[in-house]
Amino acid sequence: MSPVYDRVALIGLGLIASSMFWAIKRAGLAGEVTGYARSEATRDTARRIGLCDRVCDSAAEAAEGADLVVLCVPVGAMGQVAAEIGPVLKPGATVSDVGSVKRAVIDAVGPHIPEEVHFIPAHPLAGTEHSGPQSGFAELYDNRWCLLVPTEGSDPQAVARLRALWEGMGANVEEMEADHHDLVLAVTSHVPHAIAYTMVGVADHLRRVTESEVIKYSAAGFRDFTRIAASDPTMWRDVFLNNREATLDILGRFTEELFMLQRAIRMGDETYLFDYFTRTRAIRRGIIEAGQDTDAPDFGRVKGKPA
Amino acid sequence: MSPVYDRVALIGLGLIASSMFWAIKRAGLAGEVTGYARSEATRDTARRIGLCDRVCDSAAEAAEGADLVVLCVPVGAMGQVAAEIGPVLKPGATVSDVGSVKRAVIDAVGPHIPEEVHFIPAHPLAGTEHSGPQSGFAELYDNRWCLLVPTEGSDPQAVARLRALWEGMGANVEEMEADHHDLVLAVTSHVPHAIAYTMVGVADHLRRVTESEVIKYSAAGFRDFTRIAASDPTMWRDVFLNNREATLDILGRFTEELFMLQRAIRMGDETYLFDYFTRTRAIRRGIIEAGQDTDAPDFGRVKGKPA
Repeated sequence: MSPVYDRVALIGLGLIASSMFWAIKRAGLAGEVTGYARSEATRDTARRIGLCDRVCDSAAEAAEGADLVVLCVPVGAMGQVAAEIGPVLKPGATVSDVGSVKRAVIDAVGPHIPEEVHFIPAHPLAGTEHSGPQSGFAELYDNRWCLLVPTEGSDPQAVARLRALWEGMGANVEEMEADHHDLVLAVTSHVPHAIAYTMVGVADHLRRVTESEVIKYSAAGFRDFTRIAASDPTMWRDVFLNNREATLDILGRFTEELFMLQRAIRMGDETYLFDYFTRTRAIRRGIIEAGQDTDAPDFGRVKGKPA
Repeated sequence: MSPVYDRVALIGLGLIASSMFWAIKRAGLAGEVTGYARSEATRDTARRIGLCDRVCDSAAEAAEGADLVVLCVPVGAMGQVAAEIGPVLKPGATVSDVGSVKRAVIDAVGPHIPEEVHFIPAHPLAGTEHSGPQSGFAELYDNRWCLLVPTEGSDPQAVARLRALWEGMGANVEEMEADHHDLVLAVTSHVPHAIAYTMVGVADHLRRVTESEVIKYSAAGFRDFTRIAASDPTMWRDVFLNNREATLDILGRFTEELFMLQRAIRMGDETYLFDYFTRTRAIRRGIIEAGQDTDAPDFGRVKGKPA
């Protein structure tokens, strides 16, 4: 594949950026990739493992002359980084990001982007429970969604180019409006994470059930929650603080609904419980029929160790 | 492997029983396996697919002369089945079950077990999102836990024999006291299921977010919930009604904890959020270190389709 951009700058070198680097290299999507991380230890690690063609000691140095600058820092840090690189951005360049919320990023970053630079927020729906410069791998985006959130007046050609980069990294790309993105993600990701964090916290407090037992017998249900709850604390703190309204809206609906279920259990309402579980099962069937998951009966089963 | 029991009777022919049958056959653990299901359609299916050596038209017929009778019906139906088979049980035989709660099963089944019959409740921690006679497979119990919950005065030799059967089916066996079992399972399985059901219900009600979008972009978090929420409605209704006290206790703790998190989001309490997420991440690390899960970065990633 021929390069989509001559020079790409990755600001912040965690799981998302390092996976982008390896995916860009895998497909030859950029002539040169520069990188910057705030922590000196991260920059040292990056240099040691060959992450980025050139690791710079400031965000401005990495961004200068780049055709595409991707902000891969926690949502709460985006505004400050944008302020630092704004003055050195090349006319005609594109600035994008990978944040899990979009309205807050647009509000924080937008004002720092010069007139003649394109600003096209993005959000790849991919991740693992790991973080840091050594956690990346080239396959992270393969067959995952990347949502582009063009701002008003985004240049269609610049959008098409960013789309080509993400598709080259293996992703399926769709466009979405910022507020709608934040609501959809609150439902599909942010609130489920809040819930998973909470359930893991409950188990931790419960001294009557020893930790080892909770862990040992957590095959169904709880262990999936712990996996979700292992994601990067800084990233998630910023997600909740920056998608506050949608998260609180959905959390409110969730607790109302949970109280209904709790009451049905307390009152012994057999019909409510049966009907409720039948309905949720039908939704799951819809997901399988939509081809968004497998119904293989032995999913995730690994031979040779307790699971 | 030589047979552990001459004759095993499986009452109820869903996922758990049908998997037991195939696992018993795989290892030659029983001379003959009889089966019974309340629904005629299920019995017809069982006969057609060769599930059980002999499918009977009543629970008593299946249980008569058996050395081991395993109750594989929903928890709420166990008492009635026990009443039906009690009179025909062979002296020296063992009655066991596979219910997800244990105290309620002991209370419901115990009174119907004759003096000279062993009653050893059990709970294999295994399952899929599927149910019915055709959903079983021989590998379901491989490297999964099966908890035996011997009642007061359970004969050690009878317990050892039941353990040999489960180990022969591939499971790792441990013993546990009934009330403790119910509390551990409330934390690791029952409440996580209640939460998953609820979150799927919330998404279903939310008309502003179209169903297709919720499904399409549900890669992280939500889709795991839908998988959990697809389990058998009758089984889960009975679990919640029969482990009411522990479930309500844990649900209460969960909502308290969730309100703390919700308040921190509303108040913008950065420190609380960061510390909370750091703590839950440490718990997850503990699970990986305990060898109860893998930290492979590309878990579950399948090439060739959006995920």
